Amino acid sequence: MVQINHDGVIRLWLSLVNQHVSSKMDIADAILDILLDSVKWDEKGLAVAIAQHVDTGAVLMQGFANRDALASTISSKKATFYSRSRSKLWTKGETSMNYINICDIFLDCDRDSILYLGVPDGPSCHTGSETCYYTSVFDSLDGSQAAENKLAMTTLQSLEATIVQRKTEIAGSSIAKPSWTRRLLLDNKLLCSKIREEADELCRTLEDSEEVPRTASEMADVLYHAMVLLSVRGVTMEEVLTVLRQRFSRSGIEEKNSRKKDEH
Amino acid sequence: MVQINHDGVIRLWLSLVNQHVSSKMDIADAILDILLDSVKWDEKGLAVAIAQHVDTGAVLMQGFANRDALASTISSKKATFYSRSRSKLWTKGETSMNYINICDIFLDCDRDSILYLGVPDGPSCHTGSETCYYTSVFDSLDGSQAAENKLAMTTLQSLEATIVQRKTEIAGSSIAKPSWTRRLLLDNKLLCSKIREEADELCRTLEDSEEVPRTASEMADVLYHAMVLLSVRGVTMEEVLTVLRQRFSRSGIEEKNSRKKDEH
Repeated sequence: MVQINHDGVIRLWLSLVNQHVSSKMDIADAILDILLDSVKWDEKGLAVAIAQHVDTGAVLMQGFANRDALASTISSKKATFYSRSRSKLWTKGETSMNYINICDIFLDCDRDSILYLGVPDGPSCHTGSETCYYTSVFDSLDGSQAAENKLAMTTLQSLEATIVQRKTEIAGSSIAKPSWTRRLLLDNKLLCSKIREEADELCRTLEDSEEVPRTASEMADVLYHAMVLLSVRGVTMEEVLTVLRQRFSRSGIEEKNSRKKDEH
Repeated sequence: MVQINHDGVIRLWLSLVNQHVSSKMDIADAILDILLDSVKWDEKGLAVAIAQHVDTGAVLMQGFANRDALASTISSKKATFYSRSRSKLWTKGETSMNYINICDIFLDCDRDSILYLGVPDGPSCHTGSETCYYTSVFDSLDGSQAAENKLAMTTLQSLEATIVQRKTEIAGSSIAKPSWTRRLLLDNKLLCSKIREEADELCRTLEDSEEVPRTASEMADVLYHAMVLLSVRGVTMEEVLTVLRQRFSRSGIEEKNSRKKDEH
């Protein structure tokens, strides 16, 4: 099998391969072979494979894939790795049932690193943690007690975690310093009035042609206050993003909203 | 230097180390040494290092780090790797100036994989792409022309890309099938009325104690319509998330909002 680097070349090869195969299945297999051969496997036949949560963006875990592991992930749509310690394939979730259901797979520019983009059925770490990355180097260096229990989080996840933390403080007895989030969590009327007010202010940045940076600032306000409401209702941003993804993949958010509009 | 696995143990060791060092700097160096020794470097002294955009969640690139590369990243707060081909340290951005400015660093559960969480100064890929992961395996297998130019994206990034695509279609001459997003992009009055309406509907899920899944659905509507407004204004979700991160890290969004509230 010929080593190639570019999908454009795949299409050229395909025309040649095409002359020697007799069925659609043969063609699909030939294309798959060419793609698998195009990955720059290292001297042990491996490439780094990173699993990421498509909705939250969390980097869930990192393992290695060989040719068979990538082929298996492509066909089963379950993130599959090659265990270097056990010298065999393993599909994440085969014992825990916490599979990572693949949405798409990406190769990097050098074709020696693989990104599995998917939706996990549960915690991806064998410790029960959502992600394997929960040990902060800077907190460790500071000697923080929390260093080993701090998930790697994006900005949106950090904001959500802070809001949930305030909610937990209310439920418990440890009320710390005054907090605007806590006030909002305890006063639905204030919270809803702020959400409507911030949405209005966001619209006015467009209607009144305010300075562009105002739009980012007002959107941040809308997002923050709406996320406090989500927390009150026990809804996560992950659930919201899942709704958006499902609308896309089904018929597209646009068509959904088009239907909605037609009803009005 | 002793090999250890847990930060808890670091604190015990610290008390011992403490007896033999004379200054704060010595203590900091000793802690750093212990942390660096706690990483499970492979037989070549390397560990996988993944760089992720803290705001967007995009996995930017993957390289390898050795002890010196991790130490350098910790001290310089610029993502630094070990180049296996050139057998030397390289800081991402040292030639392109597109540094990845580190917010935090995480070790995984096995302590053999490193996550650099940061803010890139520009495109992280040497090709000029935002991320090195822009070759979709499924699109390649389908023979799609777009296979090599499709960034790995989270759900929020995909939604934003779709909206921007509609905006581009309006600017160009290629108007495709009817689209609700395109209608919103062309009608500020309709767009603002929808944003206010969706924010109101989100609030009513709380005020009227509607079924919880309604909250996720209405929040998805708020997010989508607000993101169309961002697109009209040429503002990215990345900018919005940067605003939120900066509010956190400066004085906290809560204090900011508390001040705002006091002004009212």
